[in-house]
Amino acid sequence: MLVLLNLDVTKEEIDHIYERITGFGFVPHMIPGETRDAIGITGNQNPAAKTQLEVLPGVWKIMPVTKSYKLSSREFHPQNRIVKVGDVSFGDGNVVMIAGPCAVESLESTVGIAKIVTARGAQLIRGGAFKPRTSPYSFQGLGEDGLKILATARQETGLKFVTEVVSPDDAELVASYADMLQIGTRNMQNFRLLEYVGKQGKPVLLKRGMSATLDETLMSAEYLMKNGCNDVVICERGIRTFSDHSRNTLDIAFIPAMKKVSSLPVIVDPSHSGGKRSMVIPHSLAGIGAGADGLIVDVHDNPEEALCDGPQALLPHEFEELMKISKGVCAAMGKTIGR
Amino acid sequence: MLVLLNLDVTKEEIDHIYERITGFGFVPHMIPGETRDAIGITGNQNPAAKTQLEVLPGVWKIMPVTKSYKLSSREFHPQNRIVKVGDVSFGDGNVVMIAGPCAVESLESTVGIAKIVTARGAQLIRGGAFKPRTSPYSFQGLGEDGLKILATARQETGLKFVTEVVSPDDAELVASYADMLQIGTRNMQNFRLLEYVGKQGKPVLLKRGMSATLDETLMSAEYLMKNGCNDVVICERGIRTFSDHSRNTLDIAFIPAMKKVSSLPVIVDPSHSGGKRSMVIPHSLAGIGAGADGLIVDVHDNPEEALCDGPQALLPHEFEELMKISKGVCAAMGKTIGR
Amino acid sequence: MLVLLNLDVTKEEIDHIYERITGFGFVPHMIPGETRDAIGITGNQNPAAKTQLEVLPGVWKIMPVTKSYKLSSREFHPQNRIVKVGDVSFGDGNVVMIAGPCAVESLESTVGIAKIVTARGAQLIRGGAFKPRTSPYSFQGLGEDGLKILATARQETGLKFVTEVVSPDDAELVASYADMLQIGTRNMQNFRLLEYVGKQGKPVLLKRGMSATLDETLMSAEYLMKNGCNDVVICERGIRTFSDHSRNTLDIAFIPAMKKVSSLPVIVDPSHSGGKRSMVIPHSLAGIGAGADGLIVDVHDNPEEALCDGPQALLPHEFEELMKISKGVCAAMGKTIGR
Amino acid sequence: MLVLLNLDVTKEEIDHIYERITGFGFVPHMIPGETRDAIGITGNQNPAAKTQLEVLPGVWKIMPVTKSYKLSSREFHPQNRIVKVGDVSFGDGNVVMIAGPCAVESLESTVGIAKIVTARGAQLIRGGAFKPRTSPYSFQGLGEDGLKILATARQETGLKFVTEVVSPDDAELVASYADMLQIGTRNMQNFRLLEYVGKQGKPVLLKRGMSATLDETLMSAEYLMKNGCNDVVICERGIRTFSDHSRNTLDIAFIPAMKKVSSLPVIVDPSHSGGKRSMVIPHSLAGIGAGADGLIVDVHDNPEEALCDGPQALLPHEFEELMKISKGVCAAMGKTIGR
Repeated sequence: MLVLLNLDVTKEEIDHIYERITGFGFVPHMIPGETRDAIGITGNQNPAAKTQLEVLPGVWKIMPVTKSYKLSSREFHPQNRIVKVGDVSFGDGNVVMIAGPCAVESLESTVGIAKIVTARGAQLIRGGAFKPRTSPYSFQGLGEDGLKILATARQETGLKFVTEVVSPDDAELVASYADMLQIGTRNMQNFRLLEYVGKQGKPVLLKRGMSATLDETLMSAEYLMKNGCNDVVICERGIRTFSDHSRNTLDIAFIPAMKKVSSLPVIVDPSHSGGKRSMVIPHSLAGIGAGADGLIVDVHDNPEEALCDGPQALLPHEFEELMKISKGVCAAMGKTIGR
Repeated sequence: MLVLLNLDVTKEEIDHIYERITGFGFVPHMIPGETRDAIGITGNQNPAAKTQLEVLPGVWKIMPVTKSYKLSSREFHPQNRIVKVGDVSFGDGNVVMIAGPCAVESLESTVGIAKIVTARGAQLIRGGAFKPRTSPYSFQGLGEDGLKILATARQETGLKFVTEVVSPDDAELVASYADMLQIGTRNMQNFRLLEYVGKQGKPVLLKRGMSATLDETLMSAEYLMKNGCNDVVICERGIRTFSDHSRNTLDIAFIPAMKKVSSLPVIVDPSHSGGKRSMVIPHSLAGIGAGADGLIVDVHDNPEEALCDGPQALLPHEFEELMKISKGVCAAMGKTIGR
Repeated sequence: MLVLLNLDVTKEEIDHIYERITGFGFVPHMIPGETRDAIGITGNQNPAAKTQLEVLPGVWKIMPVTKSYKLSSREFHPQNRIVKVGDVSFGDGNVVMIAGPCAVESLESTVGIAKIVTARGAQLIRGGAFKPRTSPYSFQGLGEDGLKILATARQETGLKFVTEVVSPDDAELVASYADMLQIGTRNMQNFRLLEYVGKQGKPVLLKRGMSATLDETLMSAEYLMKNGCNDVVICERGIRTFSDHSRNTLDIAFIPAMKKVSSLPVIVDPSHSGGKRSMVIPHSLAGIGAGADGLIVDVHDNPEEALCDGPQALLPHEFEELMKISKGVCAAMGKTIGR
Repeated sequence: MLVLLNLDVTKEEIDHIYERITGFGFVPHMIPGETRDAIGITGNQNPAAKTQLEVLPGVWKIMPVTKSYKLSSREFHPQNRIVKVGDVSFGDGNVVMIAGPCAVESLESTVGIAKIVTARGAQLIRGGAFKPRTSPYSFQGLGEDGLKILATARQETGLKFVTEVVSPDDAELVASYADMLQIGTRNMQNFRLLEYVGKQGKPVLLKRGMSATLDETLMSAEYLMKNGCNDVVICERGIRTFSDHSRNTLDIAFIPAMKKVSSLPVIVDPSHSGGKRSMVIPHSLAGIGAGADGLIVDVHDNPEEALCDGPQALLPHEFEELMKISKGVCAAMGKTIGR
């Protein structure tokens, strides 16, 4: 941590700052500057220290040098973490393909779509049983009935499934059905939910909040890991910006930046980032190009009747086309995709 | 709703679109355009319709004309809604002053600060017992012990208090102590929490999410109101932008814009928007100038020892100065502030 | 254009609005709504009309249906526009590779880098002679001497070059040397410059402003085209967002969205979007994946000595690696890249 | 400057970094850290150093401690700079009121509006003769004829006027008429224009770019000051964010933040930030509350016929109301406003 001092800092102020620093058990190092002096601190393990040093008289500002995430950092775990869901692995060089309907609507349609995506190379099924919806008047999901439908789809196709948990009181129920638990973008900083979900003994797909920084995303992963879940996959799904030609702005740089500081796998959601069917393939290939370890894609065989996000769902033949082009792109990058 | 058609839309596509529109029970009106035709729809009460029309062949895009919030809208309730917490009223021309520590840290400090702000004109006490923290390693609040401390502060000062609920499973507990329940910015779209909190029979302070639009904020108010809580106060606390000289960017236009479309009171949090003590008074006066119905301000008598957000807490004499200047500003606007 | 009316609009107000609409020579169509009425307008070619109708009593807001760009729109010119610089074509299925130093620093280094990129498949050379720099104390470019150096590099390699114009008074000078003129991101809405550059009879590379919308970008292209330049290539180089792990956020969706509404070619600048060498290859592949018609990449053989943006320049062997992987990715997409 | 080192930095890399630092004439100071080491540098006056150190092997990143603006900084000039336009002073405790039409449209309307705002206490007239317009098909201003009209308005009212310069080739012409030269938001980083305008010997009103940081804004002021103009007034006019209920988001924190690091006066444009007439008074009072040294307001006596931005212009009686309320608010803050 670097404590930058005011230009007109006094001897007394510096003494008081030194006193506080050593009181925290840290070692201060004076760094004289031509215009401004600073104090370097080593040994800072106390998260409250920054807050409390920042308000001292004579302090201009604090620049943290080390980050506060630990378990999720690459420095703590230098090798890539491989996250396994059944026999599917995230982070081992294969781009994992997750596909399915946005929301589980009926047994028939869900199993139908599951078979379609299985036949075309998907490795995991996605589908929402508990849906977080902006409007209280929108379809909120089928709840436990939706989980049962997903379990049937698993049986019929042999693919494992990932589904969202929206509240601590559902965590155990969802975990009793699902193979991987999803934290949605609106809940990325629902810390109590992270604690409950982290304790379920299942791998977790953590979606980045729509205005979360990289550091905040890792701190949420840290909540999961601190509660016992080391199998965390991060998902970039677009951020909120002024740009109005897509639903969100896919933040491509998040992928290499995350891989530099953390060893967790990172996947991309090209359906929610673009918000339009015509953008799903470009966004998917962009995500693969940027180094993503997987994709999670909305597919629907009858989007005209979809109860949720129909305009962004790929049709079966479009999903097939995506798989075909992606295979070539992955091969050029020394990777594989799907089954 | 306006259905804009593709330039090369065919007769067959238009017939199919008409069929779907009448199938929803709506009445289509053709609107010929020089370059592009459109279909106007009246009677659209079905939230799924937009989604399902959007994907039809021949449709360029859908422009919604009416909004999906109802209970919270000014059109539904033209007069200002006055929200009462004990004998304190939000929205009646008095700017309500809420003040207190960011987090409840001890009985002594909380009661001390409560007395300080009471003596200087505050009308409600604020203080966090359950704290949502970005890092799992940060101080998470005293929990129920914090609620008891706040209850003691209420007894000692006669002021009611507002405090945050972070999880559905705490809603009942917090409501058994608190006079007003707060939904924090990170939980604005924690819909399950909104449902539980809305059912507690207490007024609610709803903080805008840090990247929430005005419409999304009202939809979250709608969740509370649909669950029985009509006493909702909205709080602008700054949004996330590229601007890096303050913690968040206080969105001043949110206040008049919200008051135009909704009849709910709107207050400002000048402590979290600026993130620095020196910005609290400018942000407070800006909020009052823009028409806010109240302020919620962090005050601490010893910010050097604060466990949370010390750098943004006003010192007692600064709070006194804020009250003094604000009184003059409010008077110039035909309003009052505090007690 | 759709004129949405206030809920309490009066008969007199509607009459006045009708009068103004017909006064502009437009035809009004009443569209009754369950909650709100609207007036549809056809024949609106007058850009001032929106502004003047918006302020009429009884008007809630105006929703434009058609866009104000013309020459640059796909509706005006349905086929892709192929832009030629010598024998290099943008928009014909080959991804054009432009490479070179950020700034022209010396004859030796510029010619050296030009030879390096030529040998590895680049099709055009880039290099700044007039540099727009945030600080007046930074290196501002070599001016005409820089243009002469670029001309020498052209002679030595046979590749044409693109370079930036920063002021109307330089337009003619730069055009007398360069094969393609660049408008930089900070000058995207320097309208006088657009007019001068549009008149030079040279193809133009127009960089998107760092907070420009798609519509604004096309309106700037429209300035160029209205002044005689039909050979415009648009460049996405990242936008400004809250995201702090890269210099800018590459807006991948801009590429398919632009190609939908305009027939102009779109390329990507992966060097300025990421701002770090390690992000150039991921950003390049993402751009190709999203459908870009070209790339413009900073390359330097000695970035330790570069006077401008050294940290984002690829080293020669990294550029070679980029070309190699990109070739495979392009092939998988049915495209080619470079020579 | 602080050079943060990689965790696995080698002895050889450190030696090379030391060598480069001393080669620049700086003095390195090693700062050992528990997890990461750093090198502090004093005496860094060389703007290229950061760029060239950043790329060295073993360097993780560079954290600049001092800023690169000089002439505009408060550290260089601790007292507030008072900028004079005739006998009107910015920065002396009076809030300067600038008012007039967005664009100069005719002699009659301009002189009429000038008289209206003069009678109600304005101190300077605003009005655009050269208009930067997003669309090439929009009204571009009257040019020199507009300047002559403004000169007549000056003669008739006794008030000085401020008007925009959009191109280096107009700078001298505009300066021969105007009392204060304006740099528009789209030209904040049109550096050549800043150089020409800075040399005209007139005070300058510099509008912040719509996505400019505080540092970038000051660097543009630095261009003006380095070219001889010390009389610079900065104008906050709203930034571009995701927020869609106002044209721009007025960045209130910019005012106190700017005053902390610079001694230049800061004013607010409440017309362009809100973009709607109903937001002008709230934004004005917010700006005053946040400490602005002035306001620049669009006023029009017939906005239905305005050729530019009619919906945001105040009507004469609204301007009168603004002046009246503002006087009270200013008095409560120990200030005055207008004449």
